[in-house]
Amino acid sequence: MQTVSEIDDLSPGGGSLMIAWQLKGKRVLLVGGGEVGASRIGHLLRADAHITLLSPEKGLVPTTKDYIAKYPQRITYYGRSFTGPAELHKMDLVLTAIDSPAASREIAGLCRQAKIPVNAADIPELCDFYFGAQIRDGPLQIMISSNGNGPRISALIKERVQASLGGYEGLALSKIGMLRAELKKRVPDIGGAVGRKRMKWMSKICNDWPLIDFTLLDDAMIHKLLDEGWEKNRVPTFEEVCEKPKPSVVQATSSSTSGEVSKTSRSNFLIPIANFLAGAVFMAAVMLARRR
Amino acid sequence: MQTVSEIDDLSPGGGSLMIAWQLKGKRVLLVGGGEVGASRIGHLLRADAHITLLSPEKGLVPTTKDYIAKYPQRITYYGRSFTGPAELHKMDLVLTAIDSPAASREIAGLCRQAKIPVNAADIPELCDFYFGAQIRDGPLQIMISSNGNGPRISALIKERVQASLGGYEGLALSKIGMLRAELKKRVPDIGGAVGRKRMKWMSKICNDWPLIDFTLLDDAMIHKLLDEGWEKNRVPTFEEVCEKPKPSVVQATSSSTSGEVSKTSRSNFLIPIANFLAGAVFMAAVMLARRR
Repeated sequence: MQTVSEIDDLSPGGGSLMIAWQLKGKRVLLVGGGEVGASRIGHLLRADAHITLLSPEKGLVPTTKDYIAKYPQRITYYGRSFTGPAELHKMDLVLTAIDSPAASREIAGLCRQAKIPVNAADIPELCDFYFGAQIRDGPLQIMISSNGNGPRISALIKERVQASLGGYEGLALSKIGMLRAELKKRVPDIGGAVGRKRMKWMSKICNDWPLIDFTLLDDAMIHKLLDEGWEKNRVPTFEEVCEKPKPSVVQATSSSTSGEVSKTSRSNFLIPIANFLAGAVFMAAVMLARRR
Repeated sequence: MQTVSEIDDLSPGGGSLMIAWQLKGKRVLLVGGGEVGASRIGHLLRADAHITLLSPEKGLVPTTKDYIAKYPQRITYYGRSFTGPAELHKMDLVLTAIDSPAASREIAGLCRQAKIPVNAADIPELCDFYFGAQIRDGPLQIMISSNGNGPRISALIKERVQASLGGYEGLALSKIGMLRAELKKRVPDIGGAVGRKRMKWMSKICNDWPLIDFTLLDDAMIHKLLDEGWEKNRVPTFEEVCEKPKPSVVQATSSSTSGEVSKTSRSNFLIPIANFLAGAVFMAAVMLARRR
């Protein structure tokens, strides 16, 4: 946990509350089907929202048309502009992605009256919330926000963050989610001593096992892990629960990242050795050549 | 922009809408001042919210007490439990961080009736939104969410993401924000051709300049950049706008990260050379020893 002085060091204010909004079964009104609108649809589909899209047909970009065609159960499309307060009926969230600041301002005002959170693209002062550069890998989602200071830089930082990931984190997280769900089936208590013990055990295995090892979990291994681990109040090693040998790529990666996150990967580990050998060979060649 | 087939590859559903919620001037009710409550206060202060905290005094951890003492204008503290619907009056957001699932359930139900977004710690099904592991560096904020699959793993991935950053991104973003604000003073149009031209110019300089160079921008340089750049429809080099020589650390870093984000940093560049030399010296020593 952060201490107050750490917060002070970070200069407390000026930021946003970064949250993962739950939209399953919720209704979202999107006004505008251009480039920005299409990108909003992508975000909304990932969050399982039902989308009502308002946009004259001439304003649709090809990606939006593809979405409408591909997800008829998820997107209700009306080929017209926003007509008035009735459009907000039963909406949980409203996004505008249109060129007219005046129209955006009108819609945002109506939303505020109706207590519906609203985002108006490109007009920060009308927004209850901002979007940012996003990474998605299965259940893993990462958002990078510049708090309006440089959207292009968020995109560049996103590339850097993406490069720091191994590409297996999403799959590993899915498997950890399956393990947690199975454990909750055995001990469904919420909170209390059992809840804390469950959280502690899950934390311990997440610390002890290299992340990539979780990608190999299957149903049989999950059951063995709970029988030999949870039931006996210990964390088995990967080898204890898996009869098959690890694929070599996982072995190489997990041996260099055991437990704590390490910044080395397999290739980072081999490159210094290769460079050392190259230097040695070079010097040997030079000295042999001079000797002759 | 993502295409529909890219979205499909990512398996559309099952995620959250990742957003940066704006809480400046907004009122947040926090019920519970324990470990989790204290961490919520940190997030809320960073977002400039006004916090009303309800918690019997015996439930406060030291960090929460520090916050209450340190930010009396930002936190209104009542040493008691939640008493009923009147507590929600004029609240924009509600967070519970208490041990009793029944009390959380009651509060969340009242929030839903009043259309106030709510997060109940540890009870995902009561939450309109989740938190995740967070990184803050000035205006840069990054959130990592496992969508409930493994909070411990989000924390580990956060360490990995943090290690991929150079530590100067927040300062660079602040300076880019100052440049953008100065440009908006010169051409305040929203949207339209001028808005697009402004966005394009900002994008181009963000692509052309290594990110770390922005950290050195001062007021004089910003004006020169706009005079020599924006006004002449071009992007000057850093050297054109800065009379002083670059500090050597910036020089080394920016020369290896020019424009596009590169995965090499100064130390990554020197390590292979050092290894090569170590190999060469080692081999020389071995061969000289054998010659004697």
